[in-house]
Amino acid sequence: MNSELKAFLDRIRPAIDATLGELLPPDSQPPERIHQAMRYSTMDGGKRIRPALCVAGFTAYNENWTAILPVAAAIEMIHCYSLIHDDLPAMDDDDFRRGKPSCHKQFDEAIAILAGDALLTLAFDVLGRSGSFPPDRIMKVVATLANAAGSSGGMIAGQVLDLESEGRRVTRERLETIHRSKTGALIGAAVWIGAFLGEAPDNDLAGVRKYCDRIGLAFQVIDDILDASDGVNRDEGKATYPSLYGMAESHAIAHTLMVEARQALQPLGKKGSILLAFCDYLEERTA
Amino acid sequence: MNSELKAFLDRIRPAIDATLGELLPPDSQPPERIHQAMRYSTMDGGKRIRPALCVAGFTAYNENWTAILPVAAAIEMIHCYSLIHDDLPAMDDDDFRRGKPSCHKQFDEAIAILAGDALLTLAFDVLGRSGSFPPDRIMKVVATLANAAGSSGGMIAGQVLDLESEGRRVTRERLETIHRSKTGALIGAAVWIGAFLGEAPDNDLAGVRKYCDRIGLAFQVIDDILDASDGVNRDEGKATYPSLYGMAESHAIAHTLMVEARQALQPLGKKGSILLAFCDYLEERTA
Repeated sequence: MNSELKAFLDRIRPAIDATLGELLPPDSQPPERIHQAMRYSTMDGGKRIRPALCVAGFTAYNENWTAILPVAAAIEMIHCYSLIHDDLPAMDDDDFRRGKPSCHKQFDEAIAILAGDALLTLAFDVLGRSGSFPPDRIMKVVATLANAAGSSGGMIAGQVLDLESEGRRVTRERLETIHRSKTGALIGAAVWIGAFLGEAPDNDLAGVRKYCDRIGLAFQVIDDILDASDGVNRDEGKATYPSLYGMAESHAIAHTLMVEARQALQPLGKKGSILLAFCDYLEERTA
Repeated sequence: MNSELKAFLDRIRPAIDATLGELLPPDSQPPERIHQAMRYSTMDGGKRIRPALCVAGFTAYNENWTAILPVAAAIEMIHCYSLIHDDLPAMDDDDFRRGKPSCHKQFDEAIAILAGDALLTLAFDVLGRSGSFPPDRIMKVVATLANAAGSSGGMIAGQVLDLESEGRRVTRERLETIHRSKTGALIGAAVWIGAFLGEAPDNDLAGVRKYCDRIGLAFQVIDDILDASDGVNRDEGKATYPSLYGMAESHAIAHTLMVEARQALQPLGKKGSILLAFCDYLEERTA
């Protein structure tokens, strides 16, 4: 990780955690158990990649980055809700998440379902109450985020396709669709929303959109590579890039996507330096 | 039901159904099963009380009621999502809903969880794309609706309290809190949002807010009475107004709430006639 990105993340991550801590209802607020569960699954040392990318997109155009923190936190809430629901017995049935019992193991299934529902709901509540940006821009953010999280090409579509593909032969095209919708859409939306609220000019936004597309897919390809390297077989029977393409070609695919992501940032010049550094950072994880 | 309300509902309900039909992704759109499940649990002959109340609040101030239909449909989506999740085995474990298999019985649990998530997400997508109202008003609607559906005094709080109360002695105060949050908050938000988007003057909005509070609670008290009259014991071990107060006093409580709701409408004069007729309509159901 280059020193500029390191300094950025060292500053941004604690601010995101603090914002989440302020926006989530206190543990002690009735009904206590749901708020405990929401905090348990959100304040858990996650890497905050999505909110950090959102802030990075914003700071390319606007230095007053504290304004974007609630929006970035809302995006992280949507990510955390999706992890809680994905872990449920009826879904991926994972007992552990980030080294501790998953939400439905720590609490129970009903609370886990409701905690996920509540995080998704709170994300939009936060956007609706956001007073730092023009309302028409927030409306666009609400729609963009709902779309990225939704069943028409967004995160929910990806999870459905992923569940349907378990134990079945998956084409390369379908795997790309799954990765783009399940992971890529929200990652991409995070960056785009940041740049959009930072008031990036339309010309830059086109570049940002291409960057989002490429790093969104690359992110999941790299995750697949990392899981395969670690011998992780969490999702037995699920197709991955290494299982379909082999390790070397998966690396090559991720690299090509990152080259394209970097190229897409050229119109931004120096403003794109943090977003550029993210490409290296995400790719380095597999090196 | 008086003839004015009958004419209103005969006109509004098909329009709400048509709007939902347009806003929900088609059955044939991949991933098909989730979209089939979303439609299965939404296009099912529901009484559309919440969206009808929203339109009624709007038409008190603005005759161009087609503008409010997407907002009213979004509120119904949130109601339908809550029914899908409430019926899950980990929650109320109901195999039937409105006389047909509940979503997780017709499809499976994973699809039911995701269909609920997707309806909640789509509701906010619809609001974000709504072009008929000033963006600052839509932001307020987003926050109001998220709050009514959320874990801080909203629908999710009510469901948690309800689950926690099963098989336990519940005080009258707690039962009122459960009903207000589980049912009352969304019912109340529906009317308030309609009047607010219809640009009701602040003075009227105060009356509407009181009306919302009273009919929101009365609605669930009446539902309890209806269940008890029908000998329905769906939620064994769950406290209800008839089980805590007896039938006669439950009727009296519902009636008092409706009297207060009617009084709250006085400042609206003739504009409040449909909302007033709703009080009679909801109360008549128990007569």
